[in-house]
Amino acid sequence: MLVVQKFGGTSVGTLERIEATAKRVIETKKSGADVVVVVSAMSGVTNQLVEYGEHFSKQPNPIAMDMLLSSGEQVTTSLLTIALNEMGYPAVGLTGAMAGIYTDDIHTKARIENINTSRIKRELRDGKIVIVAGFQGITKGGDITTLGRGGSDLSAVALSGALDADLCEIFTDVDGVYTTDPRVEKRAKKLNTISYDEMLELASAGAKVLQNRSVELAKKLNVKLITRNSFNHNEGTLITGEDVSMEAVLVSGIALDKNQARVTLRGVVDKPGIAADIFTVLAEKNINVDMIIQNVGQDGTTNLGFTVPQNELELTKQTMSTLAAAKHIEYDDQIVKVSIVGVGMKSHSGIACLAFETLAKEGINIQMISTSEIKLSVIVDQKYAELAVRVLHNAYQLEK
Amino acid sequence: MLVVQKFGGTSVGTLERIEATAKRVIETKKSGADVVVVVSAMSGVTNQLVEYGEHFSKQPNPIAMDMLLSSGEQVTTSLLTIALNEMGYPAVGLTGAMAGIYTDDIHTKARIENINTSRIKRELRDGKIVIVAGFQGITKGGDITTLGRGGSDLSAVALSGALDADLCEIFTDVDGVYTTDPRVEKRAKKLNTISYDEMLELASAGAKVLQNRSVELAKKLNVKLITRNSFNHNEGTLITGEDVSMEAVLVSGIALDKNQARVTLRGVVDKPGIAADIFTVLAEKNINVDMIIQNVGQDGTTNLGFTVPQNELELTKQTMSTLAAAKHIEYDDQIVKVSIVGVGMKSHSGIACLAFETLAKEGINIQMISTSEIKLSVIVDQKYAELAVRVLHNAYQLEK
Repeated sequence: MLVVQKFGGTSVGTLERIEATAKRVIETKKSGADVVVVVSAMSGVTNQLVEYGEHFSKQPNPIAMDMLLSSGEQVTTSLLTIALNEMGYPAVGLTGAMAGIYTDDIHTKARIENINTSRIKRELRDGKIVIVAGFQGITKGGDITTLGRGGSDLSAVALSGALDADLCEIFTDVDGVYTTDPRVEKRAKKLNTISYDEMLELASAGAKVLQNRSVELAKKLNVKLITRNSFNHNEGTLITGEDVSMEAVLVSGIALDKNQARVTLRGVVDKPGIAADIFTVLAEKNINVDMIIQNVGQDGTTNLGFTVPQNELELTKQTMSTLAAAKHIEYDDQIVKVSIVGVGMKSHSGIACLAFETLAKEGINIQMISTSEIKLSVIVDQKYAELAVRVLHNAYQLEK
Repeated sequence: MLVVQKFGGTSVGTLERIEATAKRVIETKKSGADVVVVVSAMSGVTNQLVEYGEHFSKQPNPIAMDMLLSSGEQVTTSLLTIALNEMGYPAVGLTGAMAGIYTDDIHTKARIENINTSRIKRELRDGKIVIVAGFQGITKGGDITTLGRGGSDLSAVALSGALDADLCEIFTDVDGVYTTDPRVEKRAKKLNTISYDEMLELASAGAKVLQNRSVELAKKLNVKLITRNSFNHNEGTLITGEDVSMEAVLVSGIALDKNQARVTLRGVVDKPGIAADIFTVLAEKNINVDMIIQNVGQDGTTNLGFTVPQNELELTKQTMSTLAAAKHIEYDDQIVKVSIVGVGMKSHSGIACLAFETLAKEGINIQMISTSEIKLSVIVDQKYAELAVRVLHNAYQLEK
């Protein structure tokens, strides 16, 4: 039995929390399992380091930035290793590089290419608990990389896949995945199971329990994922193949994403290849375009809308200004994305209607709509964010 | 022309100081030289990390401790690299591992075994300023090591040797090497040149400008060393071969070491091999024994005295308790070592006499005496520390 346990920033946020985490790890080790632990930086540390880097430059050298940021996880890895050894459990700490986590060289947003697990396997054979610094890897050329925000989840899932772990436990400071954010709707319910696909849509729609890429990877590598609270022993939420959650649930959750900005291009010349041009240029800048909607236009032109993360809006503006394709561009960061997610949506009609009716009844205007098989997302004015979540949560009776 | 510049903790102690350091490096680069920079952690950071580690354990796992401590230099390396790039000077930051600094596996006190300079040389050829995290290396097995306190100096000197640098500049917050500590004797004078050997004796006698091992290594590798103040443009002190400082100076400085503790073994059986036994056991624990003095005893027994660093006294006590060799052991950490250093002492008699007379006149009792070709050290009661330095400084007319 091999368990990978990942502890987020609040779970290692203080020396006391690191001690508690060590005890938690030992519980699992005592149960007879081999344990690989992935840790984030102490909460606040990464932001502090980013501030340091940005003291010198608005766009700090990304290679140096990665070396800077990776130090945060290195510290927690060392401290947890020291704590475990002191408690009588031999442990070894590894940086991403030492753990053999190889990535491409897209610094600050690197992707894991492969993991050489020989060192980890050797340490496990020696009976050691292995602590790995999350969020980081190394290029073939030997430079430190980081995997982007939430990258420690990705480290944990990738390691689980590479080591063929029986279970990957993601410890945070909440009990699991909820039908919606309990701070917005206090009747929100914790889900016991959810499918990869639903979780994916929830994550991309702003539910912050798990990073999107890590769920994608878990699905791809068929990693059994559980998200749990490191502050208690509650059961958590199991994220796994679709069949498990086939409990005739239509909608499993409502997600709110406040981090989107809307870009609308009016009067785009309506000929093939224009959209491709625009999104190719944005992709080259590694801008994460989310929703894309094209409306029918007039006079041989069309309107094109899309959303980007708010912190990439500046870069988007710069990038768009180099394009002659659009007559008028509108930017709006005073919007939010509200999403209804559920595998049941695939096979049931009427789900979307209920959403539109519910929002209309409250006088909430829908600016953009986008749908997938298991998700319906709408863009609405920021001021309606919480109201929209609450009325939808109620409409789909998620409190039950 | 290749210059290695090392900046200590206060020189990179704040974001503003890192900016100032970047400007200093650029001055050198602009002069046409290739530059390799070695940095320490921001002042206070290493102590903070040690505190963190010791929160969990009195004797933290040394492998994890090294990973922990090395993060401090990694941060300053990254920040200086970001600053230089922002100022328009392409720079690359390297951890000790990336810089190819290979060490043995005596964690927290590792010794550099060899340096693979290929990465650094390639970066220099590409016109880059290379920033290397001081104080750290990597074992052949891939574990991070640290070189012990002051290890960044060692990194700088070793890199200077391996790269055949024309000059190794050590930047601190003082102007250079003084005849004695200016805080103790305000008439202390800065020396323009000093020989490796004198510097060695001064360093081992407690002058903190340069770490002992780095001077030894500089001598061995014939590295031209200059210690300078990063807060001004004063000339500094050149540390080099003996001939340069042959200015008929008898004594070049008085050093004070408050970090010693005295161990005295009374009634050691006076037969061959006993001393060897004792010091072998201490060496195995990596305890740095400094002065060793054996007095003639009586009744087939002898007295043996030596000094160890204060922070190794606990370990020394533990270690000595396993030995049956001595009847009575005395420990005293209320002592200091005062040393008179100068190449002129080799060829001039009477130097020692003047010291003994001077101390006697002030009623300062000498507990131990030890001499080398260019140094005379005495152990005296702690309370006389500053007085002893001042009267000796005056006796040898070092203010002139």
